Amino acid sequence: MNSFATSFIPTIRTLMGPGPSDVDPRILTALSRPTIGHLDPQFIQLMDEIKSLLQYAFQTKNQLTMPVSAPGSAGMEACFANLVEPGDKVIVCQNGVFGGRMKENVLRCGGIPIMVEDQWGKPTDLNKLEHTLNNHSDAKIVAFVHAETSTGVKNDAQAICHLAKKFNCLTLVDAVTSLGGCELSVDEWQIDAIYSGTQKCLSCVPGLSPVSFSQLAIDAITSRKTPVQSWFLDMELVMGYWGKGAKRAYHHTAPVNSLYALHEALIILQNEGLETAWQRHQQMHVKLREGLQALGLEFVVEEKYRLPQLNMVRIPEGIDDAQVRQTLLSEFNLEIGAGLGELAGKVWRIGLMGYGCNSKNVNYCISAIKSVLS
Amino acid sequence: MNSFATSFIPTIRTLMGPGPSDVDPRILTALSRPTIGHLDPQFIQLMDEIKSLLQYAFQTKNQLTMPVSAPGSAGMEACFANLVEPGDKVIVCQNGVFGGRMKENVLRCGGIPIMVEDQWGKPTDLNKLEHTLNNHSDAKIVAFVHAETSTGVKNDAQAICHLAKKFNCLTLVDAVTSLGGCELSVDEWQIDAIYSGTQKCLSCVPGLSPVSFSQLAIDAITSRKTPVQSWFLDMELVMGYWGKGAKRAYHHTAPVNSLYALHEALIILQNEGLETAWQRHQQMHVKLREGLQALGLEFVVEEKYRLPQLNMVRIPEGIDDAQVRQTLLSEFNLEIGAGLGELAGKVWRIGLMGYGCNSKNVNYCISAIKSVLS
Repeated sequence: MNSFATSFIPTIRTLMGPGPSDVDPRILTALSRPTIGHLDPQFIQLMDEIKSLLQYAFQTKNQLTMPVSAPGSAGMEACFANLVEPGDKVIVCQNGVFGGRMKENVLRCGGIPIMVEDQWGKPTDLNKLEHTLNNHSDAKIVAFVHAETSTGVKNDAQAICHLAKKFNCLTLVDAVTSLGGCELSVDEWQIDAIYSGTQKCLSCVPGLSPVSFSQLAIDAITSRKTPVQSWFLDMELVMGYWGKGAKRAYHHTAPVNSLYALHEALIILQNEGLETAWQRHQQMHVKLREGLQALGLEFVVEEKYRLPQLNMVRIPEGIDDAQVRQTLLSEFNLEIGAGLGELAGKVWRIGLMGYGCNSKNVNYCISAIKSVLS
Repeated sequence: MNSFATSFIPTIRTLMGPGPSDVDPRILTALSRPTIGHLDPQFIQLMDEIKSLLQYAFQTKNQLTMPVSAPGSAGMEACFANLVEPGDKVIVCQNGVFGGRMKENVLRCGGIPIMVEDQWGKPTDLNKLEHTLNNHSDAKIVAFVHAETSTGVKNDAQAICHLAKKFNCLTLVDAVTSLGGCELSVDEWQIDAIYSGTQKCLSCVPGLSPVSFSQLAIDAITSRKTPVQSWFLDMELVMGYWGKGAKRAYHHTAPVNSLYALHEALIILQNEGLETAWQRHQQMHVKLREGLQALGLEFVVEEKYRLPQLNMVRIPEGIDDAQVRQTLLSEFNLEIGAGLGELAGKVWRIGLMGYGCNSKNVNYCISAIKSVLS
């Protein structure tokens, strides 16, 4: 390095893409409190509170509920690597980017993915899934994405789980974008393994992945014939550190400050109340939708499958995708999301997540887009 | 959750255990700056600076030098999962906890660990290693821990690499506790894969793992016969995001704020200068050693193999280990480390790392231990 670098002072943005979302200043303050040891009794108590608060957020009594010390992609891998053994059949519902990533995870664990594919922007077809379950009665797991961040589709998690249970499958759910932003009920819906992210509707900094495993999932893990291929993500080892009781075995050094932040984010969610948070996302979505439709922008996803927290609209004919997003960023400090995969260049994805899901942001976004498009 | 949790305000500690170490307030400030998008042009520029600064810290020109978005244990797994294929022989030098963890990683990758074991508290015996290399001419990798955090031993990384290279092996090095605290020169020593942590001598918050791979290591990765078993840690995918040039493919959401903090930590190191930082650690170690020896405490590791940043002393006869550490924590807010594995209850580990490696802390630690032992 030839020259000396200087401290990084980011421009303050309004984050209305697919995540990270705007972080509540309360959470940034919590994040920057002095670091303490990862085995400090005060920290152990904090860990216990985080577990309880996550049980509330996930609506579960699962004991094995905790944040993985890495982003959502690692939470996904934690679920697959612990539950899938070589040769296991896993039915994967795909209707966007993240279902495809699930398939990749199954393959890397030596499992056999059986795909139930639907068009991007459409929900998973329950009839197709049932047909597949009938054809693969030896399947161990049904895996799907609750809130497809790449398209803004909400899959019917309750119905998919209900169907999977009829065929005695474990259910494995991606709730990265759904947790805190729309209804989700792990125990009632019979979800066996679930992972989320901190940087979406929890409005926390990115880098952690809350997960939860049912007793059925734990039984599957403890009766494995082969070791979990990841040491870092091996839930039996991780639980030695995150487990119940005062005695904690060192596994890895927890990301102490990020956990301060997650704790604060979960307190904010608890104080607002889950149902109130879900309603707020829905109300702001309606407001945003009306504004965007008034500008002539069309939603891609049919109304009843739309996620309030991730709004995908078609880019009008003749508009330069990259140019618009660049202008929004440089002139308005507003970040919205591009299309992914087959939707690249065709859509924008506008996030309304957690702290950033408020009237001020909705108004700002509509007026900025209006200004750039006119 | 029956009652409402409240914000967590940690007691301010002096962290002189095996890590996390005291975090520089400048770094905590950087950590709490407003989050921006992980594909924001400003963030891409920050990533490039982090890569250059890490090249300086590691003393390497390796292009593939970046932080893994998870703690040191994941950095370890990134090195093994990318380089070890099923059936590969890996010679692992073990003289403490972390060599054992390397063995576990080799096994989980389907590799065959060939152990070179030395007593905990002693350095790796080069003759034993040479003997093992002679007996296993088909070994692909020699893996070892540079700074054994569990014992305070510094293994002779340069000599081990030199020997490994004579036998055409790749070298894989754990530098979690060494980076920034004692001499380390990746290119000169011919290290092919190396991982570290942010929470030791960089005095940053825990949660990231800087890694670096040589061209030889990259060649081994790109010519693999089997896919890397971890999607999250697959270096070819990760490089699509961290790679050269302005075009970055989304892989996972980077831990944006933690990277602000790492950037600041690396600037602080660059401003001080690597050699000056190494000297400071040595000088403070001498001061601590004199003080502890004056209290009658004995070092376990022979002087020439001692790490300045991790000081392991024998607990005197008749002293209650847990009681002393608890009193230091509750009355002095001072954290020192317990023994791990076979050394549990027999030793204390006193860290002198990064920002916390200063005269004030050394004096405080000596006087606190004196007070508790008298």
